[in-house]
Amino acid sequence: MDPSDPIPPTTAATPDAPATPRRSIDLNADLGESFGAWRLGDDLAMLDLVSSANVACGFHAGDPLTLQRTCAAAAERGVVIGAQVGYRDLAGFGRRFIDVAPDELTADVLYQLGALEAMCRVAGTRVAYVKPHGALYNAVVHHEEQARALVAAVVAYDATLPVLGLPGSALLRRAAEAGLRAVSEAFADRGYTGEGTLVPRREPGALLHDPDLVAARTARLVTDGRIRAVDGTWVAVAAESICTHGDSPGAVAIARAVRAALEGAGVRIEPFTGRG
Amino acid sequence: MDPSDPIPPTTAATPDAPATPRRSIDLNADLGESFGAWRLGDDLAMLDLVSSANVACGFHAGDPLTLQRTCAAAAERGVVIGAQVGYRDLAGFGRRFIDVAPDELTADVLYQLGALEAMCRVAGTRVAYVKPHGALYNAVVHHEEQARALVAAVVAYDATLPVLGLPGSALLRRAAEAGLRAVSEAFADRGYTGEGTLVPRREPGALLHDPDLVAARTARLVTDGRIRAVDGTWVAVAAESICTHGDSPGAVAIARAVRAALEGAGVRIEPFTGRG
Amino acid sequence: MDPSDPIPPTTAATPDAPATPRRSIDLNADLGESFGAWRLGDDLAMLDLVSSANVACGFHAGDPLTLQRTCAAAAERGVVIGAQVGYRDLAGFGRRFIDVAPDELTADVLYQLGALEAMCRVAGTRVAYVKPHGALYNAVVHHEEQARALVAAVVAYDATLPVLGLPGSALLRRAAEAGLRAVSEAFADRGYTGEGTLVPRREPGALLHDPDLVAARTARLVTDGRIRAVDGTWVAVAAESICTHGDSPGAVAIARAVRAALEGAGVRIEPFTGRG
Amino acid sequence: MDPSDPIPPTTAATPDAPATPRRSIDLNADLGESFGAWRLGDDLAMLDLVSSANVACGFHAGDPLTLQRTCAAAAERGVVIGAQVGYRDLAGFGRRFIDVAPDELTADVLYQLGALEAMCRVAGTRVAYVKPHGALYNAVVHHEEQARALVAAVVAYDATLPVLGLPGSALLRRAAEAGLRAVSEAFADRGYTGEGTLVPRREPGALLHDPDLVAARTARLVTDGRIRAVDGTWVAVAAESICTHGDSPGAVAIARAVRAALEGAGVRIEPFTGRG
Repeated sequence: MDPSDPIPPTTAATPDAPATPRRSIDLNADLGESFGAWRLGDDLAMLDLVSSANVACGFHAGDPLTLQRTCAAAAERGVVIGAQVGYRDLAGFGRRFIDVAPDELTADVLYQLGALEAMCRVAGTRVAYVKPHGALYNAVVHHEEQARALVAAVVAYDATLPVLGLPGSALLRRAAEAGLRAVSEAFADRGYTGEGTLVPRREPGALLHDPDLVAARTARLVTDGRIRAVDGTWVAVAAESICTHGDSPGAVAIARAVRAALEGAGVRIEPFTGRG
Repeated sequence: MDPSDPIPPTTAATPDAPATPRRSIDLNADLGESFGAWRLGDDLAMLDLVSSANVACGFHAGDPLTLQRTCAAAAERGVVIGAQVGYRDLAGFGRRFIDVAPDELTADVLYQLGALEAMCRVAGTRVAYVKPHGALYNAVVHHEEQARALVAAVVAYDATLPVLGLPGSALLRRAAEAGLRAVSEAFADRGYTGEGTLVPRREPGALLHDPDLVAARTARLVTDGRIRAVDGTWVAVAAESICTHGDSPGAVAIARAVRAALEGAGVRIEPFTGRG
Repeated sequence: MDPSDPIPPTTAATPDAPATPRRSIDLNADLGESFGAWRLGDDLAMLDLVSSANVACGFHAGDPLTLQRTCAAAAERGVVIGAQVGYRDLAGFGRRFIDVAPDELTADVLYQLGALEAMCRVAGTRVAYVKPHGALYNAVVHHEEQARALVAAVVAYDATLPVLGLPGSALLRRAAEAGLRAVSEAFADRGYTGEGTLVPRREPGALLHDPDLVAARTARLVTDGRIRAVDGTWVAVAAESICTHGDSPGAVAIARAVRAALEGAGVRIEPFTGRG
Repeated sequence: MDPSDPIPPTTAATPDAPATPRRSIDLNADLGESFGAWRLGDDLAMLDLVSSANVACGFHAGDPLTLQRTCAAAAERGVVIGAQVGYRDLAGFGRRFIDVAPDELTADVLYQLGALEAMCRVAGTRVAYVKPHGALYNAVVHHEEQARALVAAVVAYDATLPVLGLPGSALLRRAAEAGLRAVSEAFADRGYTGEGTLVPRREPGALLHDPDLVAARTARLVTDGRIRAVDGTWVAVAAESICTHGDSPGAVAIARAVRAALEGAGVRIEPFTGRG
């Protein structure tokens, strides 16, 4: 998910579920999003902090050489690689909804999966999961046809690949129905409502910028299974992975603080796919 | 190779080699070169005639859905699929030389290989060889750095994949040096010089349009190992595959005539990779 | 508008308006929609039949050389040129809605307007009107923000340029409010409902393929100001221009029949902008 | 010109010409080279320092909204705008030679000129000159066909537009032959040989990074008409404009130092086109 996406997801957690404290958690971030002469984010620094890398696949970002190098750097560090598939929209960085027909979207996702797989293959690893990017991430929270199209691509390509997304989304529901492993994530630097959904970006409290605060919230969320909502209540958020943003200013500082806080609380950082 | 490429290859055959009559031959054609609303060629008709399909990979042509459908149709017919990799240049259809740095070209080829592999995978097959397209095909006849970069991609991706190209090219030489299988092709509808090279496109006799003539020449080339040059001499041309053009007007008629002539001469049409 | 657009406009005419017979009418068609090696439509044939050419601007179709040649050919024939602006989506041919932010859309339209203007300038003419393409055409029937963004571009660029679109659309309403000339068009080969709206594409009677029928309907529409709806009633359709499709099979035959029928009925074919 | 271009121009000055001291000079820089989410350079800071802005036109860099804003910001500050035309190659940032056919290159340049003109128009100004970017800049030093194609576009579009380029280049020679004003530039941060040519980038002394040194050399070059070559000799360099790089690290610091040194030496910074 992308910090500047205009369509705020309305469902982001499962407030009625019991809190589920964890002793280990995955940290994921979007990487490989440079394009040619344009650099974005500090991929190498982030790769030292996360356990899962959502690597762009060339449609919203990521030229082939960047993807190859990012996958090689991730493999060297034992960071698990997921395919961060997006709309074909370099000019919009995948942040604009596109009304792609389902069969075209399935083909677009297959194309991106395969392209990134080649980069993983020459790095001695493989694509280990799929996560949609930007406007596609937001669309498949509700857009049943696009969610189904994305799931169809994964099922056809490799039905053992987990799909990472927003709890309560059409994507995760359809993934589970199709027999895929559906993995929920929470957001380290986003505010939550009392209903366990993300605070829409235009409202106060939507985005948190203080690394220490973000880190403390995240540690509590993992060890206690709850997060403090903007209305002051505590809501249960069940997540197997925590998304930290890779490209915003201060991204590395936040990720570093989150990791330190988790380790300080005795939580192991490890990929949700398990160690290879 | 592309009928409108401006840079004529200067080496196309091995005139000193003894003629090598064959009882079987591969027929290849460029397919999957539509893009979105723009259709090119009659892929289904061609797939009934060839034994190997050089399927575009999206950089010079081929949207993902076209690639998926072309691979599925090829797989259904038992036609072997090769990755037709090209320069990233939709506006130029890959027909313009681009001075891509070697590491970028290697990454571009890997990306394309993987993308097409995904389409093969969901069609129950796999990429079985690699053939460069258009200006890249012509460049790697002489351009040592780009030839090496292309070979490096294939070696890194899957060193069992053959490379299909022009006899005498830097590409095939470097492929062989790197331990890859280097496969030579001849052109059904091109004129040859007395030295066994292709007649440059701007000279008389460069292109043959009469299906019967093309078919007769091709049958003779395969059964006898020789082709009649523009100067009237007979030159030896050793080729494991015959390229027929998939997108020119009359492409299907020529391919049909070539296939009929070969079968009439008792030659089996079968992929150079062997039957799967 | 585009024959394969998935979102049917729901408002297409002004049924309550009195029928307005005309002695002259404009014929427009989408042209310049080839891209590189991919050819689409028979632009030269269409230019002999229409009075206004909606020339693509490179975002959904139209490489620069195609645009330059199309503008030159239009200028030679005295055909008026309009900028057919679209979403930045070659892979989707501009037929997929993209949720472009208004300021980006305004800039995209300006960019396309200027690019086509250069081609007009070297052909000794100028961009004379603006018409949105494909999914953008359909979007601005209802999408107020995008309609406003498109109008803002035209106002900023040249407030004397008319905007061509669907009667009743947000686009034409906002154009008129902004002081632009808002020009309505009717569709020669589309079915109309009893309310004067276009029959949605998936319903029977949405598309008419018989040139003679289309021609007769169009002549009646122009000379009488009414068209026969699918329910058998006659509805008033006020249009200053008739759109004939440039790229469908049979496009030239239909345009020729329409032109002949109009001329046979004593209707002059002339651009809605007036003769230059 | 671009600091990372691989093909160093071999002719950069006119060593036999007499030194021509100047009381005023133009400062130009490449601007508008961001693309969507990817930012490059500090355009606003540079616009306060230069007198001419070479604004990208969307083919190698520059999304429409960036171009619109850059043109508006330039116009507000009275900075003259030139069209920085390049190859169609976002992935390569226009830094890779592309063997574009002359008629296609002419059309590509026209398209870019017009697109930028629209952005100038809505900013209340106009495109005032043309400068090629990156690999195209380097190509037209020697590539006669591409130089001619670029000149043909300018002549057709507006024969009063000057062309800015490397002294001694095919571009400037052909521009002058065609009746265009051919404007030479020198490079503030490049080393020169004793023959007055640029030191190839891979050799020592090719690039200067110290702002004070660059500034002092530039001031001397302008006030004295000579520059100190790497061999210690002084060579005459006749330039109507000084190029400072807009996107390298330290670009703003160098441009600021250059401007201060020139002003300190009593040199007026003003556009070579004259004040509007």
